[in-house]
Amino acid sequence: MLSDPAQPSPPPTNLLANACVVLVRTDGPVNLGMIARLCGNLGVTDLRLVAPNCLIDCEDARKFSTHSKPLLLSAPVFPDLPTAVADCGLVIGTSARDRHKEFGGGVRLQEVPRLLAERPVGKAGRWALVFGNEADGLNELELRCCQEWVHLDTPGTNSAYNLAMAVAITGYCIACLEPLPPAADQPDSSPRNHVASLYAYWLGTLDRIQYFRRTDKVRFAPQFERFLGRLHLSVHDVQVLRGMLSQVNYYCFGRRFAGEELPQAGDDRTDDVPRATPETEGATG
Amino acid sequence: MLSDPAQPSPPPTNLLANACVVLVRTDGPVNLGMIARLCGNLGVTDLRLVAPNCLIDCEDARKFSTHSKPLLLSAPVFPDLPTAVADCGLVIGTSARDRHKEFGGGVRLQEVPRLLAERPVGKAGRWALVFGNEADGLNELELRCCQEWVHLDTPGTNSAYNLAMAVAITGYCIACLEPLPPAADQPDSSPRNHVASLYAYWLGTLDRIQYFRRTDKVRFAPQFERFLGRLHLSVHDVQVLRGMLSQVNYYCFGRRFAGEELPQAGDDRTDDVPRATPETEGATG
Repeated sequence: MLSDPAQPSPPPTNLLANACVVLVRTDGPVNLGMIARLCGNLGVTDLRLVAPNCLIDCEDARKFSTHSKPLLLSAPVFPDLPTAVADCGLVIGTSARDRHKEFGGGVRLQEVPRLLAERPVGKAGRWALVFGNEADGLNELELRCCQEWVHLDTPGTNSAYNLAMAVAITGYCIACLEPLPPAADQPDSSPRNHVASLYAYWLGTLDRIQYFRRTDKVRFAPQFERFLGRLHLSVHDVQVLRGMLSQVNYYCFGRRFAGEELPQAGDDRTDDVPRATPETEGATG
Repeated sequence: MLSDPAQPSPPPTNLLANACVVLVRTDGPVNLGMIARLCGNLGVTDLRLVAPNCLIDCEDARKFSTHSKPLLLSAPVFPDLPTAVADCGLVIGTSARDRHKEFGGGVRLQEVPRLLAERPVGKAGRWALVFGNEADGLNELELRCCQEWVHLDTPGTNSAYNLAMAVAITGYCIACLEPLPPAADQPDSSPRNHVASLYAYWLGTLDRIQYFRRTDKVRFAPQFERFLGRLHLSVHDVQVLRGMLSQVNYYCFGRRFAGEELPQAGDDRTDDVPRATPETEGATG
């Protein structure tokens, strides 16, 4: 593939040590408080909130956040999930409903060490564990932003766990799993915002070369997003692919297409990449 | 040993199917509600309360018991733990604190299938999973009533889980474990109230034969209770041991000692047992 070989790093002692717990559109302050406390139990030091539906600094949240009030009150609040997980190398969503028709089979909690070994995030990198709203869970757009999703078994007749309970079960089970060493030669995952930017640039380029005369963009876009989500792309991989697309633009229109800028990676690497020919267009669609 | 061989029964599909969840001196209605809901998630249909410190039928408990309100509102309330688990063949307590000095090493959740295979409770029998008060956990008397205790790991700095979270983690982890078939020739466990009655009768008999002239009863009694707790005793084992003690009384005093009566087993079996000689006294202490 496009990846550079990288030295495998020693496995961390607790898979949650470099995880962030992301709570999306949470309704209940009791849940917020309990989950903050739980983060303290499990050694999660990175709690992030997306568009919460309730007050964070209120009596219930404070009461139930025992010993983790500072973590809760200082938790960053993001407008949407892509922004909240921009710096994460892998995003795992959760769903009480079975979503395999839209999002593939999902994974079991036991598979999380394998996922992280296949798509390592590096020592300083982050991966995200995302929990949706109490009543509705994660919506389609949010689940598309996740590279995998997990579903908890419910042997009984109640099919959905309380949100805080779901976080407790998921977190504890993952904390108890043995980390696996990264698969040989796997480079660290690109942060999700680089991949999101590549996706937008790729789609924009396809638009410019009139790819959507033949293909329905509305149907194509989410499938293509999921395809990109499935790939393990390093920072370098994203740069190389973007360079190829840039060259398509240059070849077709005589100038590079600005599109969305990569947040930090330089576009200056693009000149190292061999000239793309128009025949490569749509090959991945 | 004293046990009759018994046919091993096929393992149940979910270890929690014949478990009761016992909540002791619970302070918070939110926790009560959440735990009732969780029982519905995990297929636990037997929730028991011991001397709750809060109202059960109140707004918070109802609100958090989603789909399991009837289970919560009909949960039987007991004055103390021995009464609540009288019909159980095995009682497993939980503790956030490490109690190994007083109560031995404790077991890990993964060992629960082995415990239940070694001390099977039979198809209609029950085993109990006991959770103490939010602030103090189970007290010493309550933990003595448990044959084993489990402690949840906390990789983070908060050392105690919220009660409802602890029930969620413990319950889910046990529900995910594969049941083991009962160990060969293991008879079903005696209900705990038969063992408790045997303990009282045994202690009373020792008192009558002046055993406590040589031994400090206050120190001896809890150690002896733990010793009896560790043993896997069937209903028949308890009857035989009680018969031996009855004969000690008859031999020494010319009449059987009434002591505490066994709730249902007949003392009429005692005559099948060979006459005990005074030399057997105190052999187990």
